Amino acid sequence: MELKDALVANKTSCENLLKRRFFYTSSFELYGGSAGLYDYGPPGCALKCELEKLWREHFIVFDEMLEVSCSCITPYNVLKSSGHVDRFTDLMIKNVVTGDCYRADKYVEDLINTVIASMETPADKKGKEPAKKVINAKLEQLSKQELEKLLVLVGDMDQKAMEEFLETYEVKSPEGNDLSKPFPFNLMFATTIGPKQEVNTVAYLRPETAQGIFVNFNRLLEYNGGKVPFAAAQIGLGFRNEISPRNGLLRVREFLMAEIEYFVHPKDKTHHRYADFKDVVLPLLSRVEQESGSAKTQKMSIADAIANSVIDNEALGYFLARTFLFLKKCGINPEGVRFRQHTSNEMAHYASDCWDAEILTSYGWIEVVGHADRMAYDLTCHSKATNTQLVANLRHPEPIPVTRVVPAYNKPLIGKTFKTKQKALLEHFEGLSLEEAMEIEAKLASDGSCKVLVGDEEFEVTRPMVSFEKVQTMVSDETFTPSVIEPSFGMGRLIYSILEHSYRVRPMEENMQDERQYVSLKPPIAPIKCSVLPLSGKEVFNPLITRVQNQLNKLGISYKIDKSGASLGKRYARTDEIGVPFAITIDFQTVKDDTLTLRERDSMKQIRIGIDKVADLVLDLLRENLTWEDAMKEFPVFSQQEV
Amino acid sequence: MELKDALVANKTSCENLLKRRFFYTSSFELYGGSAGLYDYGPPGCALKCELEKLWREHFIVFDEMLEVSCSCITPYNVLKSSGHVDRFTDLMIKNVVTGDCYRADKYVEDLINTVIASMETPADKKGKEPAKKVINAKLEQLSKQELEKLLVLVGDMDQKAMEEFLETYEVKSPEGNDLSKPFPFNLMFATTIGPKQEVNTVAYLRPETAQGIFVNFNRLLEYNGGKVPFAAAQIGLGFRNEISPRNGLLRVREFLMAEIEYFVHPKDKTHHRYADFKDVVLPLLSRVEQESGSAKTQKMSIADAIANSVIDNEALGYFLARTFLFLKKCGINPEGVRFRQHTSNEMAHYASDCWDAEILTSYGWIEVVGHADRMAYDLTCHSKATNTQLVANLRHPEPIPVTRVVPAYNKPLIGKTFKTKQKALLEHFEGLSLEEAMEIEAKLASDGSCKVLVGDEEFEVTRPMVSFEKVQTMVSDETFTPSVIEPSFGMGRLIYSILEHSYRVRPMEENMQDERQYVSLKPPIAPIKCSVLPLSGKEVFNPLITRVQNQLNKLGISYKIDKSGASLGKRYARTDEIGVPFAITIDFQTVKDDTLTLRERDSMKQIRIGIDKVADLVLDLLRENLTWEDAMKEFPVFSQQEV
Repeated sequence: MELKDALVANKTSCENLLKRRFFYTSSFELYGGSAGLYDYGPPGCALKCELEKLWREHFIVFDEMLEVSCSCITPYNVLKSSGHVDRFTDLMIKNVVTGDCYRADKYVEDLINTVIASMETPADKKGKEPAKKVINAKLEQLSKQELEKLLVLVGDMDQKAMEEFLETYEVKSPEGNDLSKPFPFNLMFATTIGPKQEVNTVAYLRPETAQGIFVNFNRLLEYNGGKVPFAAAQIGLGFRNEISPRNGLLRVREFLMAEIEYFVHPKDKTHHRYADFKDVVLPLLSRVEQESGSAKTQKMSIADAIANSVIDNEALGYFLARTFLFLKKCGINPEGVRFRQHTSNEMAHYASDCWDAEILTSYGWIEVVGHADRMAYDLTCHSKATNTQLVANLRHPEPIPVTRVVPAYNKPLIGKTFKTKQKALLEHFEGLSLEEAMEIEAKLASDGSCKVLVGDEEFEVTRPMVSFEKVQTMVSDETFTPSVIEPSFGMGRLIYSILEHSYRVRPMEENMQDERQYVSLKPPIAPIKCSVLPLSGKEVFNPLITRVQNQLNKLGISYKIDKSGASLGKRYARTDEIGVPFAITIDFQTVKDDTLTLRERDSMKQIRIGIDKVADLVLDLLRENLTWEDAMKEFPVFSQQEV
Repeated sequence: MELKDALVANKTSCENLLKRRFFYTSSFELYGGSAGLYDYGPPGCALKCELEKLWREHFIVFDEMLEVSCSCITPYNVLKSSGHVDRFTDLMIKNVVTGDCYRADKYVEDLINTVIASMETPADKKGKEPAKKVINAKLEQLSKQELEKLLVLVGDMDQKAMEEFLETYEVKSPEGNDLSKPFPFNLMFATTIGPKQEVNTVAYLRPETAQGIFVNFNRLLEYNGGKVPFAAAQIGLGFRNEISPRNGLLRVREFLMAEIEYFVHPKDKTHHRYADFKDVVLPLLSRVEQESGSAKTQKMSIADAIANSVIDNEALGYFLARTFLFLKKCGINPEGVRFRQHTSNEMAHYASDCWDAEILTSYGWIEVVGHADRMAYDLTCHSKATNTQLVANLRHPEPIPVTRVVPAYNKPLIGKTFKTKQKALLEHFEGLSLEEAMEIEAKLASDGSCKVLVGDEEFEVTRPMVSFEKVQTMVSDETFTPSVIEPSFGMGRLIYSILEHSYRVRPMEENMQDERQYVSLKPPIAPIKCSVLPLSGKEVFNPLITRVQNQLNKLGISYKIDKSGASLGKRYARTDEIGVPFAITIDFQTVKDDTLTLRERDSMKQIRIGIDKVADLVLDLLRENLTWEDAMKEFPVFSQQEV
């Protein structure tokens, strides 16, 4: 069976298991729940902790990243500078009668999908054709191909395009009421800091952890001894006031993120460990491929992808490779991973290249890790807003040529023309980048005048007032605003993907009833590493349990003791369901000769081992210093306890 | 020097170090900062992570607690039920001219302290007495003793007492303006869920993590196989919109909490591991001691404290002992710890016994861990609000006698009197606890009538309408609402306390300049476990660094490589300042014979060891399988690198 089909086939039973064994649940279920908010129960929470630990080891420790932990509550002006106050929005439509709100693109996608589905309903299935309900008269006039074409466009529609679409197809609410025009709804949760209700006390819950890193750039740079490149990282909560949350853990209002910001010279986007990972082969779905209407992934090494200009630079390639390795380490099936490059339309205006690691789930391909080259956008925004330099210095061994722009002003003319406003204009000129200045220069050269916007003020600048000249100088010390390459993980989505990819049903065998489902979580992220099962609740086993327990505690191995009266089979099934990789069973032979059995979850095989050696063996297995196959060679294999 | 004096003497240099080395900083410093919000930089963040890990091992893993991770955003009705909407408040006063707000108790405390301080100013110090500024004419008429007596009372003042105080002493704003009467200000951050602006979309950021556990009680109980006692735990953010945050990490608006809720039978508050910890001796400051006007702690074993009715029950005693051991494990000086029992005034009305673990800092004794017996309060609130049972069952081996209350109604009379409202009253009677029913019965017996409040409705119930009788029956299955014992850690306060208790200055020696400060963090919570220092940046050291690095990575030991050109001494000092316990130095001898040196932070002593053995040795030292003294016996001690 294809992976996608298997995931879809297992979807319901998998989600039932996850809910029943309290991996997660809707928050405040007791009060009827709150859409888009989820709580992790014991196995889900432990899995989350282990995943954080693994992420930290794989990324932060491995690359000596500077980890920070910043506030969730973020004042208005920080998010105004970063662009979130103005642009962190989704288009919303409102039922003008009931006031119900919908996210416009999802509403339209659902509508088109419903129309398509209605076409596919086999008319002859139940003998008589039911009276067909009109879903949307206009859309129903289109062919399936036309509808599918529309569907692709919806995600990219801006406000105007969406408005036109809703008008053209006379889209109504599900109840048939009129809908408002689409308008942007800001997705940040707003609150107020302190007791005063004033403008400067408005704050938001952070929509991403990244901004906390950017505003600390100067301290981080200093901590790193003034040297770029370096990476900073943060694991923490992000918040997004979704208009209509859905798909369980996949679109939620509060979520754990893990973000890396790699600060690098804009003209030297390399990574010192690139060579070690350049041969990692990734499944890539490039922009070009998508724009040609295909969804075919190509397997390509990082080095080849860079040589063929598929991936923009080595640093970005390095992180794509590291992410891929991490996903495999987590137990994601590599056949269900692809790296999809953003198309020109969907990429943020400040980004130069973006690749999403997408994972195949029963909901389709979902974005789990973003990798964006954010250029100098964020540091520049915060620098301008606070009038503070956010730059690094580079000392070249040999002086290098640098092009600067030198303005020549006719100050009397400027003064006469703009009077008290001249200062603002001159300051603006001094702050121009090379590109901005040369653009004005080109316009002045061709048209003799140029409109320049400073704040809200427009200046009509003429040729005689100013000219900009490019000058090349040799410098040893170069000051630059670093570019930022950002891998950004949605941990909730990753957890859900891991669980779907790890869900298994054993083939039916004799004596098996419902004890066939399990979650084949890799040992490093298994919620609990080991269960301890005495054959029964008899007093005689208690001192032996304590001995095992003390050893496990000493090595920091998490465990769960199950002394309940259920049969061993039932108890194994219970621990299999929450993904415990190993089970230690204490039986009557243990009482006699201090040996017990160790069972591995996936194979269900057992070995017999001394009580004082078992914890060390489990640690070796968890650390992957030893495989289960090796352990089965080293210790006698055991078949079944006598009861 | 006494601990307190040492902490006060070191306060400034310690905080300067913490700031300089980016343990933490004011959030959004680039934008001028935001009061009460802090970011952890790399060493602080790593310390926080290690502390979480240690907490998880010490509490959650050790006692197989059920860890959960719940949403921060919490709907209105949940916090309405829990009492936070109505009672999670501080008294606030407002400058009626400027609108500036103050927390009333802190404002008054500061005022009294200022008056006291002004009395202590030695008039003859500078020869001439300066014209003394009037701070508060009324208060200045009191003696120092009277003022100190007032100071003690301030924290316990309710709204009325505070209002009277402000009037009596004619308290004004610092600018001399009138102040408003004190009024309660709710300390929760409010926000709105989803796009609709309606009552049922109001939400708050959780003020504690505990409520997430209570609302999941039924699922947790099921996960635990229906058995009580069990403990659930949560590490996560709490939020508190402080009126006037201060004292750095000690009073903040966003903070990490770690909370345990131990659910236990209300009449059997035991813990199965109590016996292992009953002899732990704690520094206790009991309610009785405090109410007699003393602040003297008594050292007493848990068992003695329970035998002498100082501590209420074994379960509470168990957690006090476990907390004390944890604090010592974190590096808190046990001389700077006391367990202070709440006085009758300060204890919440639902609690039966409360003990704060207080730590001595340069700011005085601060509450870091609360231990409250919350009784059945929270489960009862949520159960009533949602009309859902939140109870556990207990099967007794032998039937036990249980006292129940049996009401006898005169239904015709009740019906005639209260008409359509009778149903609400009867339902209310059925839901009464034994105590509540017997209270009504007593009133009816003595007065012949009794006012009964149901919702907002008052019923005048008379003797003929109802009588309640106590009946004893024998039962095997008992249904009960568990009591909750809650240890609650403020992790930010703990981190700050650890740092103050770990800050050291080496005695001045020859050749020492400013390289004398260090943070003697215990290895398990040290932000980075090991630094790797090549003698210089020479190429020849690079492959050796890589060898060390690979070993450390394999064992998951965090490290920092410092190849900078600074002298070894300077580089040791840098790692000492962020509390790195071990340093591996690669020198010219390493190139010759594959040996390198390992230096321990506190002793500054070094040993020489083979490059392939060093990571294992560090791991043993970190795990405390080996002491540094042992290591010095096993390996040759080394004095100083030749440069």
